[in-house]
Amino acid sequence: MVNIGIIGAGRIGQVHARSIVSGVPGARVAKVADPYIKEEVRQWMEGTGAKVVSDYHDILNDPQIDAVLICSSTDTHAPISIEAIKAGKHVFCEKPVDLSPAKIREVEKALAASPKKLCFQVGFNRRFDHNFEALRKATLAGKVGDVQFVRVSSRDPNPPAPQYVAVSGGIFLDMMIHDIDMVRYLSGAEIEEVYARGACLIDPEIGKAGDVDSATVSIKLSNGALALIDNSRRAAYGYDQRAEVFGSLGAVAITNDSESTAVLSTEAGVTAEKPLYFFLERYMASYQKEMRLFVDAVTNGTEVPVGLKDGLMSIRIGLACKKSLAENRPVRIDEI
Amino acid sequence: MVNIGIIGAGRIGQVHARSIVSGVPGARVAKVADPYIKEEVRQWMEGTGAKVVSDYHDILNDPQIDAVLICSSTDTHAPISIEAIKAGKHVFCEKPVDLSPAKIREVEKALAASPKKLCFQVGFNRRFDHNFEALRKATLAGKVGDVQFVRVSSRDPNPPAPQYVAVSGGIFLDMMIHDIDMVRYLSGAEIEEVYARGACLIDPEIGKAGDVDSATVSIKLSNGALALIDNSRRAAYGYDQRAEVFGSLGAVAITNDSESTAVLSTEAGVTAEKPLYFFLERYMASYQKEMRLFVDAVTNGTEVPVGLKDGLMSIRIGLACKKSLAENRPVRIDEI
Amino acid sequence: MVNIGIIGAGRIGQVHARSIVSGVPGARVAKVADPYIKEEVRQWMEGTGAKVVSDYHDILNDPQIDAVLICSSTDTHAPISIEAIKAGKHVFCEKPVDLSPAKIREVEKALAASPKKLCFQVGFNRRFDHNFEALRKATLAGKVGDVQFVRVSSRDPNPPAPQYVAVSGGIFLDMMIHDIDMVRYLSGAEIEEVYARGACLIDPEIGKAGDVDSATVSIKLSNGALALIDNSRRAAYGYDQRAEVFGSLGAVAITNDSESTAVLSTEAGVTAEKPLYFFLERYMASYQKEMRLFVDAVTNGTEVPVGLKDGLMSIRIGLACKKSLAENRPVRIDEI
Amino acid sequence: MVNIGIIGAGRIGQVHARSIVSGVPGARVAKVADPYIKEEVRQWMEGTGAKVVSDYHDILNDPQIDAVLICSSTDTHAPISIEAIKAGKHVFCEKPVDLSPAKIREVEKALAASPKKLCFQVGFNRRFDHNFEALRKATLAGKVGDVQFVRVSSRDPNPPAPQYVAVSGGIFLDMMIHDIDMVRYLSGAEIEEVYARGACLIDPEIGKAGDVDSATVSIKLSNGALALIDNSRRAAYGYDQRAEVFGSLGAVAITNDSESTAVLSTEAGVTAEKPLYFFLERYMASYQKEMRLFVDAVTNGTEVPVGLKDGLMSIRIGLACKKSLAENRPVRIDEI
Repeated sequence: MVNIGIIGAGRIGQVHARSIVSGVPGARVAKVADPYIKEEVRQWMEGTGAKVVSDYHDILNDPQIDAVLICSSTDTHAPISIEAIKAGKHVFCEKPVDLSPAKIREVEKALAASPKKLCFQVGFNRRFDHNFEALRKATLAGKVGDVQFVRVSSRDPNPPAPQYVAVSGGIFLDMMIHDIDMVRYLSGAEIEEVYARGACLIDPEIGKAGDVDSATVSIKLSNGALALIDNSRRAAYGYDQRAEVFGSLGAVAITNDSESTAVLSTEAGVTAEKPLYFFLERYMASYQKEMRLFVDAVTNGTEVPVGLKDGLMSIRIGLACKKSLAENRPVRIDEI
Repeated sequence: MVNIGIIGAGRIGQVHARSIVSGVPGARVAKVADPYIKEEVRQWMEGTGAKVVSDYHDILNDPQIDAVLICSSTDTHAPISIEAIKAGKHVFCEKPVDLSPAKIREVEKALAASPKKLCFQVGFNRRFDHNFEALRKATLAGKVGDVQFVRVSSRDPNPPAPQYVAVSGGIFLDMMIHDIDMVRYLSGAEIEEVYARGACLIDPEIGKAGDVDSATVSIKLSNGALALIDNSRRAAYGYDQRAEVFGSLGAVAITNDSESTAVLSTEAGVTAEKPLYFFLERYMASYQKEMRLFVDAVTNGTEVPVGLKDGLMSIRIGLACKKSLAENRPVRIDEI
Repeated sequence: MVNIGIIGAGRIGQVHARSIVSGVPGARVAKVADPYIKEEVRQWMEGTGAKVVSDYHDILNDPQIDAVLICSSTDTHAPISIEAIKAGKHVFCEKPVDLSPAKIREVEKALAASPKKLCFQVGFNRRFDHNFEALRKATLAGKVGDVQFVRVSSRDPNPPAPQYVAVSGGIFLDMMIHDIDMVRYLSGAEIEEVYARGACLIDPEIGKAGDVDSATVSIKLSNGALALIDNSRRAAYGYDQRAEVFGSLGAVAITNDSESTAVLSTEAGVTAEKPLYFFLERYMASYQKEMRLFVDAVTNGTEVPVGLKDGLMSIRIGLACKKSLAENRPVRIDEI
Repeated sequence: MVNIGIIGAGRIGQVHARSIVSGVPGARVAKVADPYIKEEVRQWMEGTGAKVVSDYHDILNDPQIDAVLICSSTDTHAPISIEAIKAGKHVFCEKPVDLSPAKIREVEKALAASPKKLCFQVGFNRRFDHNFEALRKATLAGKVGDVQFVRVSSRDPNPPAPQYVAVSGGIFLDMMIHDIDMVRYLSGAEIEEVYARGACLIDPEIGKAGDVDSATVSIKLSNGALALIDNSRRAAYGYDQRAEVFGSLGAVAITNDSESTAVLSTEAGVTAEKPLYFFLERYMASYQKEMRLFVDAVTNGTEVPVGLKDGLMSIRIGLACKKSLAENRPVRIDEI
């Protein structure tokens, strides 16, 4: 039985707690640390048998705890990761590990220096989504032959608040980082060079906060293939999550999930449902799956499915996109 | 070059004329007979090189004419067919050949008695539609294995005028006759017994005219398989033409054609286009194809793709449906 | 907190136990009774805090138990239901309550005679499936206007063993009973008369067991509308669950769920995934939802969403179908 | 009646001739000029009443001819256009008018200098395709609000011969030129800057001929919106022609046409048909429609739907893409 400590009981911390309670065999939430936990969350957590504490050091110092989930604010991810590694804990860290490659490399060093082999998994949950997994599986099985082109389209139902945008690292590090990871995951190749465009077409306040709300990136992959990503902070019809892998033998594409398959035909047209509302609805099952795989890795000493290197690469690529947009030129990842 | 005479220059006569002019190689419209032809139709016909006459005997007596298309009113189909056969002409007769099996059998006798081998084709155009042909082709190729079940759904965009209903023979002979022919065509088996239900749910005037506007038929086929047909005189979203063949290895199904593949996603939903408006829009290509095959048969002495027997069977089955509805019991086709 | 006792720890009993543990707030599995429970099931049950007993009377006699789920073999449903009612327990009874209307009426009498108002829910889980709920919701919201026609298609991936068929009550009571309930649920009307056809096209052993493996039913509804059901015990492509409601303003239709939205385009065609494998995969979420609604009803004294009358009607209609097939004639439900 | 002379009786010349004969009211093919016409083409042309000549000057000098279609090889388009304009003929010129903007500007000058107002239409037939028209219509009707993003995906079923590639102007001028025109047409805005990537992933001979066979272009539009184009010279599943317009109120997207709507469900999956084979199958109706609109413009003196400016812009943008790929930097169109 893997004893888990969750650091940070906000939205994503709660998602992981629920996942573990309802369907991660071999693991239990032993402790939860959050100085500002909401009362109803505390009650629910305690109802499942977890102990709720204020200070996360209570988790790191507890010899009963095998692994920690770092679900606190982004700026604390790297330092807490390092502390946890030093305390000999396996770590599941929410994305991004940090907005700075240098800090992620410090985590890498701490991990390499650990006398005990520790699992360190990064929360790129989309890799465990049924649709993206089906794409990957078909591609790995050779159904599309040699990959020549990858496309990822990702649009949110609503833009974030401008004050969030200001601290988020911007559209490339906050939103497109998932799509960047998907291009790597789906192509099985490394991103070598990016050319980014952006525009502020949805909310001028986002522009004032120094960011764009619409963006495209043109990518060159290490195997010679090409890729395109397009992002929008607001699609009127909801959360749009599509992707395509094209190769020498064909293409495989995924489209959106919705509440039901119902199609209504009337004088007005033939109408299907909109996509599931947002990432919690759309990707709920993937959060449970990534947690199961993390517990597997901890239990059996196997490789984690998304490691620190994946966390580092996506940040470097995101920063290359920012630089490309700022300088209006293609930027090689090794510049970062 | 096959010289064709068209008897009746109404809607369907014009459709055939246009088909021949624009894309039936090896045939030309030589004469058109209609005592009440509209002036603009006459001008167009003459512009294509056809001679327009009043009396259809001018066509039957013309030794240059090889084949006639009978596009006049239903009650004249059988007698003109017999006259045309006696005049040694190949015949393409619009459906139904007659509402009475006895009269169709007289045509059969005339055809058998002809010293010259004549082609006689019945206008079940739907057999030459790209969608229904794809169903048939997949089934014949063994893609679904042994046929176990056939379904045909057919709904019109708007009900006919009640005065038309009164002389049409009713929903089973006027509308469902195409679907009955499709069950035979798609299953490759004969219909042995039918059980029909009907209701007047759309227009009470249709009920006053002695007919129903909504109907279902449960069918037993000669190979043991089952079939279902459903009809409605009015679908708010337009002309609905779907079918499915299910067998031991799987199923093949067709759905509607529409103007374009455009799908609009907005806050209101994900909306595709409605089906093509009605039979002229939906089945236009099939009219040309049936005509090409008729000209082929005339030219090369090959079998016509839809013969008099098909015309007779569909009428007998339609009459069995009427009897079934009237008596609320299953009716075997050999009762008719 | 509703304390639940589960009688019968076979497949469906386990499904309900898991549903309650993972996501039915306000309820817990207190006891499970099964004389032949498998060891690993016992361990899992006990791990969740439930007590496992042999004799279901231990549940009925336990004053801590508020409600029982009857998941034992079909022939015991009615007698245990009566005992449970007499013991003052709320009852959730798996379908069918019994194969005989007379026995269901005895349960009705026991329920009416209970001094305490008890909830009695029947396990027609499909009513709580996201697709069927979307159909119902659209219909109730008036999106299709007055209902004129309902169709339900239901095909299993594989036929049951012939020895099961022999005791199952046959295709109409064992398989089509869900579809019959769906026609009532979706139309909002009662079934007045049925005409059934059947054939043995898949497994001759099913025929020897006195049943058919392919069936259609033509239905007349109390509001004048028509309905059709088609069933097959084996679809090569898997579990096929589709339905359509057609009315004066349009139609709403549902199709199958599958593992992902992935579509593979190659030289061989454009291929989507097959339907989810069978009822456990396809309807898992509906089992949890029906349980939540049962617990709601028990807790708040509200109406259960599927009552004994629904259980009785579906059996009477299933028996009418059997009679119709045996006598090859339409059978009114009030004959049964 | 508009008398048309066709210069060049190769594949596209024949397509236009057939379109006019079968369905362009108010026009007829009076003369066809081709020194190397195939015998069966000559016979068919003469059968429709056209006169076949060797030298296209026989057409330009014929006072009965109102309009010419220039369907000869690309390098002759501009000089023959100028001759035709000087001869006072209306001109329909196949795309591209020329690979050099300078030569297109000479045609512009000739047109401006003509004492008679002449129609000059360029053969961007895709604008008249039912799918692309539906996209444009929805966008113009404001269904997607302000356009923020446009995507065009275009893949051929098979690469051209390398010797063709060498004289074609390369993928951007030969293939992507249609997609470039589509971005302008669908967005209703001008392309300001492009960034192109290319790779040779399909046929190394294409690389040796100095071209790429896979390409993407990232576009900035004059209204601030973004666009992406992706091209491949070979899709194993056939001719892939998709596009999407995304805006403040939603998105509208089109996908491929195929031979039928038939979907086959078997143990192997749920399989629809591949796209229609190539541009002649896919776009046949659009060729007829562009010809009807040209004849309309000639007859009524109205604006042609695709003018010389559109021909010029697409070439300039294609050349900017070539330059961008060669120099690996974004290129503004006003550089060309």
